[in-house]
Amino acid sequence: MQIGLVKGTLTATAKAERLTGQKLMVVDVIDAAGKVIVPSLVAVDTCGAGVGDGVMLTQGSAARMAAGLSAAPIDLAIIAVVDRVSVDT
Amino acid sequence: MQIGLVKGTLTATAKAERLTGQKLMVVDVIDAAGKVIVPSLVAVDTCGAGVGDGVMLTQGSAARMAAGLSAAPIDLAIIAVVDRVSVDT
Amino acid sequence: MQIGLVKGTLTATAKAERLTGQKLMVVDVIDAAGKVIVPSLVAVDTCGAGVGDGVMLTQGSAARMAAGLSAAPIDLAIIAVVDRVSVDT
Amino acid sequence: MQIGLVKGTLTATAKAERLTGQKLMVVDVIDAAGKVIVPSLVAVDTCGAGVGDGVMLTQGSAARMAAGLSAAPIDLAIIAVVDRVSVDT
Amino acid sequence: MQIGLVKGTLTATAKAERLTGQKLMVVDVIDAAGKVIVPSLVAVDTCGAGVGDGVMLTQGSAARMAAGLSAAPIDLAIIAVVDRVSVDT
Repeated sequence: MQIGLVKGTLTATAKAERLTGQKLMVVDVIDAAGKVIVPSLVAVDTCGAGVGDGVMLTQGSAARMAAGLSAAPIDLAIIAVVDRVSVDT
Repeated sequence: MQIGLVKGTLTATAKAERLTGQKLMVVDVIDAAGKVIVPSLVAVDTCGAGVGDGVMLTQGSAARMAAGLSAAPIDLAIIAVVDRVSVDT
Repeated sequence: MQIGLVKGTLTATAKAERLTGQKLMVVDVIDAAGKVIVPSLVAVDTCGAGVGDGVMLTQGSAARMAAGLSAAPIDLAIIAVVDRVSVDT
Repeated sequence: MQIGLVKGTLTATAKAERLTGQKLMVVDVIDAAGKVIVPSLVAVDTCGAGVGDGVMLTQGSAARMAAGLSAAPIDLAIIAVVDRVSVDT
Repeated sequence: MQIGLVKGTLTATAKAERLTGQKLMVVDVIDAAGKVIVPSLVAVDTCGAGVGDGVMLTQGSAARMAAGLSAAPIDLAIIAVVDRVSVDT
C-alpha cells in the first residue's frame, strides 16, 4: 500500500454507471516525511476521509476488495485514515 | 485512477478481434495543474470523450469492468469526463 | 495500452512449455512523437507484426485475453499494428 | 518480488474491516547494496518481521495469496525475512 | 516481459509456506544492450537458470501461470533462459 495525502475532490457527470455515488478524492502519494512521490491520483474513498487527511491507499484489483466495490471499474481506493506513522530514522 | 487529457486517436486495421468497434484515444496522464506525468498512452473510451477533454482513466483489470469490455484485451479505459478538479493548494 | 516500436526478436530454448510456438518480439515503448519511454520489453505477437512496425501493446492480465493465450505465463502482448496516430499539438 | 527494509509501523483506527488485526509495516524497497529504490510503502506482515529486518515483498494480487489474506484489500505483503542475499559483483 | 540478468540468490528461513523448495534468484532488469533498468528484483526460477544467465522475466499474475506455481504468493518468475536477442540498431 502507499501513504497518501488527500488534496481535493473530482466531479464528473459523464461517467461509468458503477461510479455513481462514489466519492472521488484527489490524492498525492507521499513518503513518511511528507514528500510527494506521485502527484494527483484519484481514489475512491471507503473510510470517510477529508481534504488534508493522511490516508492509506491500495491499488489494482485490491481496490475492488474494499466494501461494496467488487464490480466497480476502479484501481485505487482509500482503505484507512492514518493515525500515526512511526519510523526509525 | 489517473487524470488524463485526450490528445488524439489511434487507428489500426490489423488488431485483436475484440477491439473491433472500440474507440482508441491517445491520452497524456497529467497532474491537477495540467503537467504531463506520462505521455501517449492509449485508452478505450467508454464515455463519449473527445480530443481536448479532461478525463479519468482506470488501468489494469479495472479497465475491463467498464461497460461491455469484460473479454477485451485492454489495460486502460476512460471511465469519466471530468467536470471539475478542486484541489487545496 | 502503450504505443510500441518493434526492434527485434528474442529466442530461447529453455523456456516455459506454454511459450512454445509463440513469437517473442523485443519492443520499445514510445510516445506519439517516437521518443523511447521504456526500452527493450518482450511481447508475444498476436497480429503478424514485424521489425520496424508501430504497434499497440497491452500488459498484465489483459495480455492473456488475446487469442489463444489464456493459460500462457505472459504479461505483454502486441494486440494491433498501428496505421495512424493523430495527435493535436 | 522486491527486497525491502522495515522502517517502522503505521496505525489507523478508521480502516477497512478486513485490515483489523493485520500488522502494517512501513518499508523501503532497496537494492542488493541497500540503496533505497522506493521509499515508504506499507506492507502487511505475514512472517513476524520487525523494524530493521531485511524482507522480501510481493505485490499486487500475489499479496493476497499469503496465509489468511485472500479477501483483504491489500496490494503488498512481507512474505519472507531475508537471511542472506548473495550477489556476484 | 522483461529481459533480466541473474546476479545471485536470496535465502530465507522465515517465509511463506508455499515458497518452500522454490529457488529465489536476484535479477537485474536490463535493456537489449545490457544496461540496468531496474536493479535487484527477486524472481522464482522455473527454467534452471544460473548466475550470469540472461533470462526472460514475467511479472504479476502471469508469474503464477508458470509450472506448479498457481497458489504461490509470487509476482515475478524466470520463464526462459535467453539464447539470443536480435535487435535492429
